[in-house]
Amino acid sequence: MKVAIVMGSDSDLPVMKEAAEILEEMRIPYEISIVSAHRTPKRMYDFAETARKKGIAVIIAGAGGSAHLPGMIASITTLPVIGVPIKSKSLDGVDSLYSIVQMPTGVPVATMAINGAKNAGIMAASILSVSDKSIAEELQVYKDNLCKIVIEKAEILEKQNEEYQAALYEHKR
Amino acid sequence: MKVAIVMGSDSDLPVMKEAAEILEEMRIPYEISIVSAHRTPKRMYDFAETARKKGIAVIIAGAGGSAHLPGMIASITTLPVIGVPIKSKSLDGVDSLYSIVQMPTGVPVATMAINGAKNAGIMAASILSVSDKSIAEELQVYKDNLCKIVIEKAEILEKQNEEYQAALYEHKR
Amino acid sequence: MKVAIVMGSDSDLPVMKEAAEILEEMRIPYEISIVSAHRTPKRMYDFAETARKKGIAVIIAGAGGSAHLPGMIASITTLPVIGVPIKSKSLDGVDSLYSIVQMPTGVPVATMAINGAKNAGIMAASILSVSDKSIAEELQVYKDNLCKIVIEKAEILEKQNEEYQAALYEHKR
Amino acid sequence: MKVAIVMGSDSDLPVMKEAAEILEEMRIPYEISIVSAHRTPKRMYDFAETARKKGIAVIIAGAGGSAHLPGMIASITTLPVIGVPIKSKSLDGVDSLYSIVQMPTGVPVATMAINGAKNAGIMAASILSVSDKSIAEELQVYKDNLCKIVIEKAEILEKQNEEYQAALYEHKR
Amino acid sequence: MKVAIVMGSDSDLPVMKEAAEILEEMRIPYEISIVSAHRTPKRMYDFAETARKKGIAVIIAGAGGSAHLPGMIASITTLPVIGVPIKSKSLDGVDSLYSIVQMPTGVPVATMAINGAKNAGIMAASILSVSDKSIAEELQVYKDNLCKIVIEKAEILEKQNEEYQAALYEHKR
Amino acid sequence: MKVAIVMGSDSDLPVMKEAAEILEEMRIPYEISIVSAHRTPKRMYDFAETARKKGIAVIIAGAGGSAHLPGMIASITTLPVIGVPIKSKSLDGVDSLYSIVQMPTGVPVATMAINGAKNAGIMAASILSVSDKSIAEELQVYKDNLCKIVIEKAEILEKQNEEYQAALYEHKR
Amino acid sequence: MKVAIVMGSDSDLPVMKEAAEILEEMRIPYEISIVSAHRTPKRMYDFAETARKKGIAVIIAGAGGSAHLPGMIASITTLPVIGVPIKSKSLDGVDSLYSIVQMPTGVPVATMAINGAKNAGIMAASILSVSDKSIAEELQVYKDNLCKIVIEKAEILEKQNEEYQAALYEHKR
Amino acid sequence: MKVAIVMGSDSDLPVMKEAAEILEEMRIPYEISIVSAHRTPKRMYDFAETARKKGIAVIIAGAGGSAHLPGMIASITTLPVIGVPIKSKSLDGVDSLYSIVQMPTGVPVATMAINGAKNAGIMAASILSVSDKSIAEELQVYKDNLCKIVIEKAEILEKQNEEYQAALYEHKR
Repeated sequence: MKVAIVMGSDSDLPVMKEAAEILEEMRIPYEISIVSAHRTPKRMYDFAETARKKGIAVIIAGAGGSAHLPGMIASITTLPVIGVPIKSKSLDGVDSLYSIVQMPTGVPVATMAINGAKNAGIMAASILSVSDKSIAEELQVYKDNLCKIVIEKAEILEKQNEEYQAALYEHKR
Repeated sequence: MKVAIVMGSDSDLPVMKEAAEILEEMRIPYEISIVSAHRTPKRMYDFAETARKKGIAVIIAGAGGSAHLPGMIASITTLPVIGVPIKSKSLDGVDSLYSIVQMPTGVPVATMAINGAKNAGIMAASILSVSDKSIAEELQVYKDNLCKIVIEKAEILEKQNEEYQAALYEHKR
Repeated sequence: MKVAIVMGSDSDLPVMKEAAEILEEMRIPYEISIVSAHRTPKRMYDFAETARKKGIAVIIAGAGGSAHLPGMIASITTLPVIGVPIKSKSLDGVDSLYSIVQMPTGVPVATMAINGAKNAGIMAASILSVSDKSIAEELQVYKDNLCKIVIEKAEILEKQNEEYQAALYEHKR
Repeated sequence: MKVAIVMGSDSDLPVMKEAAEILEEMRIPYEISIVSAHRTPKRMYDFAETARKKGIAVIIAGAGGSAHLPGMIASITTLPVIGVPIKSKSLDGVDSLYSIVQMPTGVPVATMAINGAKNAGIMAASILSVSDKSIAEELQVYKDNLCKIVIEKAEILEKQNEEYQAALYEHKR
Repeated sequence: MKVAIVMGSDSDLPVMKEAAEILEEMRIPYEISIVSAHRTPKRMYDFAETARKKGIAVIIAGAGGSAHLPGMIASITTLPVIGVPIKSKSLDGVDSLYSIVQMPTGVPVATMAINGAKNAGIMAASILSVSDKSIAEELQVYKDNLCKIVIEKAEILEKQNEEYQAALYEHKR
Repeated sequence: MKVAIVMGSDSDLPVMKEAAEILEEMRIPYEISIVSAHRTPKRMYDFAETARKKGIAVIIAGAGGSAHLPGMIASITTLPVIGVPIKSKSLDGVDSLYSIVQMPTGVPVATMAINGAKNAGIMAASILSVSDKSIAEELQVYKDNLCKIVIEKAEILEKQNEEYQAALYEHKR
Repeated sequence: MKVAIVMGSDSDLPVMKEAAEILEEMRIPYEISIVSAHRTPKRMYDFAETARKKGIAVIIAGAGGSAHLPGMIASITTLPVIGVPIKSKSLDGVDSLYSIVQMPTGVPVATMAINGAKNAGIMAASILSVSDKSIAEELQVYKDNLCKIVIEKAEILEKQNEEYQAALYEHKR
Repeated sequence: MKVAIVMGSDSDLPVMKEAAEILEEMRIPYEISIVSAHRTPKRMYDFAETARKKGIAVIIAGAGGSAHLPGMIASITTLPVIGVPIKSKSLDGVDSLYSIVQMPTGVPVATMAINGAKNAGIMAASILSVSDKSIAEELQVYKDNLCKIVIEKAEILEKQNEEYQAALYEHKR
């Protein structure tokens, strides 16, 4: 069982590779490619139609502007499709978000935050964790680590602040 | 040469039939059907791919929410595609508008106002008028008539206002 | 393996019950309840923390306005959380959508369209279909049916239009 | 038959010249000028009124902010008018988009994406292709090429990724 | 010296007549008519060009959607033009507001609130008050009256509230 | 120590009285009146300037559209000012919200949700609870009750659902 | 008769000085100062109340964010107030625009485009032109010049384009 | 009695430290730390639940995107919670603002402007001033100083302008 990461344009790669990185970190096999709904509609159709048979379990699709890729894939396959709205040049990604999230009844796309490719990877892991205990554990480790990092930073800040306040009050006198 | 009017759902019909009505008024042949990008992706693909061969000259496509129909048709055919964003339940049609208008470079959709199906019909006529003189004349007649109606209404209002002002000043004395 | 449907307020029930209905239609077991992040934070915490152990595989959470429920549940469990932004009284659901979808790195929520509870049910089925073949088949049947309904409606419209055009042209003569 | 490209200000030229470039690429004759609805209303009126007679078949008009140029031209001529909303300094082009797309019934403007001047050129070609087979072929070549470029990039990415994954896994061991 | 009230469509009359009413109240002569930038561009041009010569001092123009009327009039005349964005069917008047207010450098429109026709009348009076003392006095009377009405209502509310609180506390015991 | 509730217009009363009701419920003394920044600027100034001396501890101010009342009061007094954006006719209250919340550095307004007058009352109580233990207890009781109500409703829903599911499955057989 | 230019903060000066510059260009006397509704409410009150007596004919007020200055001045004086929404750091000036334009009935502000200070100066001139013929002529000269500049630029562009096309076609051969 | 400043991420520190600085300036004791609703839900819960007991009087919470921290803290404590929406990468802070301000009935958050951390500090002081006279005086001093600074800047500008005008007129001659 592997994850497929596709994007509408190679200009989306700097964002979408974060999905790949987190999957690697969790040792989840994936493939990555460019599949444009608008420029390669046939390729998109074939990709979506054969995905389940080819052993893909979850599809992550990123697109910007009139972002049709995630929704079109979801119209063809019954696999869970995770959509990543790419921040656009003129509408800040609101166009991408609305195009991806406002899907009609019957054809859902699991939409992430604008440029939220890393979270798409984590959501894919989470979906796989339903039937794969080791991934569930991997996710728990990741979650615990997120927490640990915050606490470490909090401790540093608290300490820095004590010193900073002390210094400031010194300075004021 | 005829126009094809397609829409993503039969719930779009009350809006989209205005495109049909204006085409009828201008005696331009048309066909009308439901073609859902999300629920009938194959049908959509076939429709778009065979449109030019079947004698269709312009395609009018209406869709709401994650409105992918106009853009997906435009990704498959080289015919001019006119998109009509249908007003949606929760985002006032802004989602439909952004999904249709913000197409990537290479794949344009001629976007109308939200619920602007009548204008889609007029735009189709305008496109046909490039090579069909009689439609150009029909359009000029329509335009002249728009103007005449405003002027008639303006005259009524101006007259009414004179009477209304007179009555009001009477009343004030 | 079952799905949990939770919502922030009983006023969300008319929307959220559509998630329940589609799960029933697909014979997927589910439980449904009210869990408010803001009014019952402890209950929410306990719900999220024990969900996986209690055999829940996917959580569907609906909330409106400052819609914190889906995100807070996702912060506690590693299960996939599907968020349904409920249309709000004054901001048309944009507030609900932004609150749910714009999650920080590390804690994704699979966001649906505004009021898209039915799609949340389908997404839950889709997630379960990754490891459950019969649900995958159920989804394919559902998808095929969506397509069939559109085609039937299209045929009716096409026929009606022929008659309608005929009638109109009759009328014009 | 030629295309006219007009814009409200010379500051729009860096965007609008993309329309000219794609027309050149497709060997479609065009003229280009500055015609401001707000600063040269008479010139705008004359331009629009004489366009058809002067052999212009399609008008591309770009404007920003209170972008009245495309709509005002469309109010005067029956030729198809393609509007390009120019990205504005303070409202990201939303003002330009709304000013151009939300035309009243009777006077349509074929609206492109914000800064979508290249697509305006392609749409003009598409409109001309209705009655000009060679342009239809040109467009098909362009479309095929768009597809080819994506596939080439996809192949590079897929290959790079294999190498990248290999390298990463190497690095991890 | 009189005020001209124009609007793009007779459907704007229920809003725009409030401008007329307040002018009447202040005994300022006015004329009212329909002048559509999009449907009667020539009439609009002539109206704007001859306005100053015909003794008009201020122009109030209301329009909705792609609201070009106020800006186009302002492009032709040097008289002060007050724009009233009419609330539109699908974008709540944001399209009308942006179309009217975001005018380019050199061609200002004095924009009112959405549907703010009454304020347009008051602004016209205020402009005339610069050189007409009696209108300045009329405006001061109007302003004083606004204040008086609020104070009266405030007194009623304060009194009602005392009684209401008393009643409520009674009820609670 | 009492709370003052003021609003820009008597049309805001149906919303603002919810602030009064919750204060009554918590037995916190309050006064209520109409104070318009735009129609009674002097009255507003006097109200704000004398508030602290008159024993007012917290000011709740509701206003809609160009909602200046809360911010102007905050510019004059050093008391905490709670702003309630009233839902407006054409912009859904976004104008009211932005006018109230986006205050410049130095002059804060504690902004509530659109139409959130009840929460304004609770926030006032919360502010008073800083130095008044009995109000802190009152708030805790209120909070516990909110929680209890949700749990009761949750239990009803859970039970209803069991019955509903049973009935549905019956029906299906 | 002179114009007063006021702004809420000295950080608005780079924008607001454009109003001063155009007034200078048209030889209209003006004064300029900082008057903050939020930081100097009394000064603002006094400024607005004495403006007419001090020979001010039109007030231009610029402000950003919760932009209360223009509206508060308009609440105190009967002089025409022109509001300039200053582009803000986080909401692109939409907050400033809504705060200024959405004034309640009875208290209008003549709102300009975001950062439209130059247009505020022109609008002030236009208001003065109602009773001052020489300013009307000055404005006509300015308008004619705007037109002339566009036509000159258009001619340059047309010529450049001929050369550019020639060069391009050369290059292609 | 002290103030607690918490934020969802250390990336919010450059903004949030302005709250600390103003509190220092007013000699109000505070503590500062990182408490993430999404990454450390338990820590957040414990922080909020024990805050009142630990002598905290007011909580300032800053968060961005799906900004749940202020609302979640407010759901647990009865202390006044001041929310600071942090400007986000893709939606300009509108997501943060809506997530924080649109709280449901029963659980208010005193919301500041986007990035308005300094105002959060002032609001905290204002809340404490209800029962602490010396803080009320401190605030009055601060307010008087704000006023003084504006007046000083106004005087400089007025003087500069006189010189600037003189110079300009010199230059023109």
